[in-house]
Amino acid sequence: MAKVKYSLKARSESPARLIADTGEFKIVIDEPTNLGGTNEGPNPVQYVLAALCGCLNVVGHMIANEMGFELKGLEFEIEGDINPAKLYGKPGGNRAGYEEIRVDIIPDTDADETTLEKWLELVEDRCPVSDNLANITPVKISVK
Amino acid sequence: MAKVKYSLKARSESPARLIADTGEFKIVIDEPTNLGGTNEGPNPVQYVLAALCGCLNVVGHMIANEMGFELKGLEFEIEGDINPAKLYGKPGGNRAGYEEIRVDIIPDTDADETTLEKWLELVEDRCPVSDNLANITPVKISVK
Repeated sequence: MAKVKYSLKARSESPARLIADTGEFKIVIDEPTNLGGTNEGPNPVQYVLAALCGCLNVVGHMIANEMGFELKGLEFEIEGDINPAKLYGKPGGNRAGYEEIRVDIIPDTDADETTLEKWLELVEDRCPVSDNLANITPVKISVK
Repeated sequence: MAKVKYSLKARSESPARLIADTGEFKIVIDEPTNLGGTNEGPNPVQYVLAALCGCLNVVGHMIANEMGFELKGLEFEIEGDINPAKLYGKPGGNRAGYEEIRVDIIPDTDADETTLEKWLELVEDRCPVSDNLANITPVKISVK
């Protein structure tokens, strides 16, 4: 299949606030005031959790449809822990980002447990955002 | 340093549209109509790009401050390619998500090239979202 390119431009409005522009949509990213922001939007690591849920939703419905069971809806509870030591240049942090992300999916369906286990396996395998988090993604950053 | 937990809840409004709720902010995620959505918001993989820019912005300003040079602003151009074969269960896709993410950062600063090279190295090392993409992040998903 032909590759699909996604792109956007973004511009800082302050040291913590950024507006990303997809061409059609603007995304406001900020930090709470205690982290130097103006709290006008979710912060970057919250957007990561939202993106993962959004992707699991799309892929979850697609695969339920392929497997032939009815999915009336999905709810998600998601969390992750960050040790901020590395971000702040302090000792003791193993890594800068989430050490782990945990997701509970609550499906509204009559499908049985075995079906849902198979469904989850396929969803995890085919979900783009899950893949980019769970596996290494080359990130190439240049300063112009 | 004490770990910080981030969490949110999310609920599907349709097979492609999801509302994530951080408690303070709602994030609308959707897909374009040609992918079965209603195009009411950016899609999950666009949010990944935005989250990365938002995080590079925060960390970039923090480290410029630590290094003692003035950063008047940052602009970002970011893109990534996805081969949708794996998502759709077709042969030929190596992975479900971005094969690579490329970011150009355009800083508004008088700092010289050597300073900016050192700055970028520190930013990449200490940026949480860069870490979660560039390295393996355990994602544990359960169905309730």
